[in-house]
Amino acid sequence: MRLVVVAGTTETARIDGISAAGADPALMRHTPGADLDVVVHGEPTLAPVVPVSPTGCPTPAVATRAACELLGFDALAVDAGVAGRTGAPTVDVGFGPGADVREAEAVSRAAETYANARELGAALPDDRIVVGETVPGGTTTALGVLTALGEEPTVSSSLPENPLDLKRRVVAEGLDASGLAPGDAAGDPLTAVRAVGDPVLAAVAGLTVGAVESGTAVTLAGGTQLATAAALVRHAGVEAPLTLATTSFVADDDTAGIADLAASLDLDVRATDPGFDGRDHPAMAAYAAGEAKEGVGMGGALALVDDADTSMAAFRDRLVDVYDRLLADDGGDADVDADR
Amino acid sequence: MRLVVVAGTTETARIDGISAAGADPALMRHTPGADLDVVVHGEPTLAPVVPVSPTGCPTPAVATRAACELLGFDALAVDAGVAGRTGAPTVDVGFGPGADVREAEAVSRAAETYANARELGAALPDDRIVVGETVPGGTTTALGVLTALGEEPTVSSSLPENPLDLKRRVVAEGLDASGLAPGDAAGDPLTAVRAVGDPVLAAVAGLTVGAVESGTAVTLAGGTQLATAAALVRHAGVEAPLTLATTSFVADDDTAGIADLAASLDLDVRATDPGFDGRDHPAMAAYAAGEAKEGVGMGGALALVDDADTSMAAFRDRLVDVYDRLLADDGGDADVDADR
Repeated sequence: MRLVVVAGTTETARIDGISAAGADPALMRHTPGADLDVVVHGEPTLAPVVPVSPTGCPTPAVATRAACELLGFDALAVDAGVAGRTGAPTVDVGFGPGADVREAEAVSRAAETYANARELGAALPDDRIVVGETVPGGTTTALGVLTALGEEPTVSSSLPENPLDLKRRVVAEGLDASGLAPGDAAGDPLTAVRAVGDPVLAAVAGLTVGAVESGTAVTLAGGTQLATAAALVRHAGVEAPLTLATTSFVADDDTAGIADLAASLDLDVRATDPGFDGRDHPAMAAYAAGEAKEGVGMGGALALVDDADTSMAAFRDRLVDVYDRLLADDGGDADVDADR
Repeated sequence: MRLVVVAGTTETARIDGISAAGADPALMRHTPGADLDVVVHGEPTLAPVVPVSPTGCPTPAVATRAACELLGFDALAVDAGVAGRTGAPTVDVGFGPGADVREAEAVSRAAETYANARELGAALPDDRIVVGETVPGGTTTALGVLTALGEEPTVSSSLPENPLDLKRRVVAEGLDASGLAPGDAAGDPLTAVRAVGDPVLAAVAGLTVGAVESGTAVTLAGGTQLATAAALVRHAGVEAPLTLATTSFVADDDTAGIADLAASLDLDVRATDPGFDGRDHPAMAAYAAGEAKEGVGMGGALALVDDADTSMAAFRDRLVDVYDRLLADDGGDADVDADR
């Protein structure tokens, strides 16, 4: 088993009110590289921040790192277009950040990114991979891709109140700029990603197809973004069994409609509850209140914890350790060292 | 503790008779990426070959991987200018392959490579790093740098018969093309690397300086190339204690003069004998006969085995396992899958 985290950026995240994957829009571009640093090294090394939401909710990378430490496995970081810096070693499959979905082309080199990732997926020597993502703004690009493919256009949010109306307006503008109507890209996943997706979607889809083709089982570790990657895989004609391992926070988000979306894509859904309800710790209370919800493979990491010879209580203890190392010193104001 | 392998290429390796770090000159460009794949994944994933010498001697990456598996640690791969492909995740500090040392500039962006690596070395969260290299042709560039710095110009070889006369002629031509006489770059390490070095030397020196400056102990894992990186560090004015952990094969190579070179650079030398003498296995017999000798951190990996709660016999067993997985199927003719 290998946990793979695919990281990238899209200019879409700069749209005001779209994402909470960073303390502010200027810091958000550092989130993917910092997430990789946190998962791989347990702390930012070359990234200048620990990602937190505007209210201080820590990145789900903290949970994924806690699972890595508790279970003793390492993550493979894949760079599909990271804008900021990272000290995590990466396999590079992309060509820089994605554009704003409201441009004519959101991922101009979607096909090459997909092909590179597919080759990597086929080459990995594992029986099973668990694939997560980190890309601020990624639920909006996911909504764009689902709409372009003609799938159920529902996505979750890192914000407690999902700004779905805003996302829909942005996606409508993006489809218009690309000369596409909803459903026009059915059966043509690369057109959907190129027009209104992000580089991480191209890479996760390619990685999944390559892995499946070489006999590797794939668990998609995330919520609506990973379900959207699965939609791309299905529209590429791949019918292999796929599991979507997500958090209870996404599963409980009625605006996300994850169960219906997954059913329509023939995905097995597994939602794991880390037991954060009622915990008086900033790494848990914000999630219980509906922030962040998922990301950086958190749902898959929780499933691995659930399957292992350990307890969710031990996971929570480790989560607090990781959080305290990263954020406790400065009271959660994580951007003090940021090179802004 | 973290094992770091810095990989890169130099066009110097294309000079006929310079290096045995590949089955032939066309395959040699794949060696660094393949070495990283072997160390990190235990097999080539995106690299098209298992590196072997023209006579079939396997890359020392096999030994380093065996130590990783036996002791349960992971390696960090650093890309200082890999020409071929690798599926190993890397931190990138370089700007592509180095030029032939006979050009005016062998590493035109030596200063930036050094600076990037220095920043990485300072950022790594480890108490101690063990740093190895993979760069075919690297003993010739090392000879160039030692000569430019005015240090004792002696280096080892991956060939049983060290082609020192050829290396000296190449280096003399390189210094001439760079407008340098021997010793002209004393106290100016970046000039030496830019003129007649390779990108790996720039990166290892920068990594070491950054690590030492941030309180991280550094073991240089290799022979005369790593000693040359230490020379660059000394000429940068850094006087911290440094250990050179090498194999008994380099220590026993009179042409390498490693003891005198190390003494002149104030390096503690530790040579570890893996006990290959008299073993009837291709992964060991070729080394005992003087091939390869060192590389990809092998000397450091052996020292870690020697310090651990295990035996050199267990290491040799694991080495055979790794070799058999990689090479036994095709009788040691490892390039059958090569995309030449």
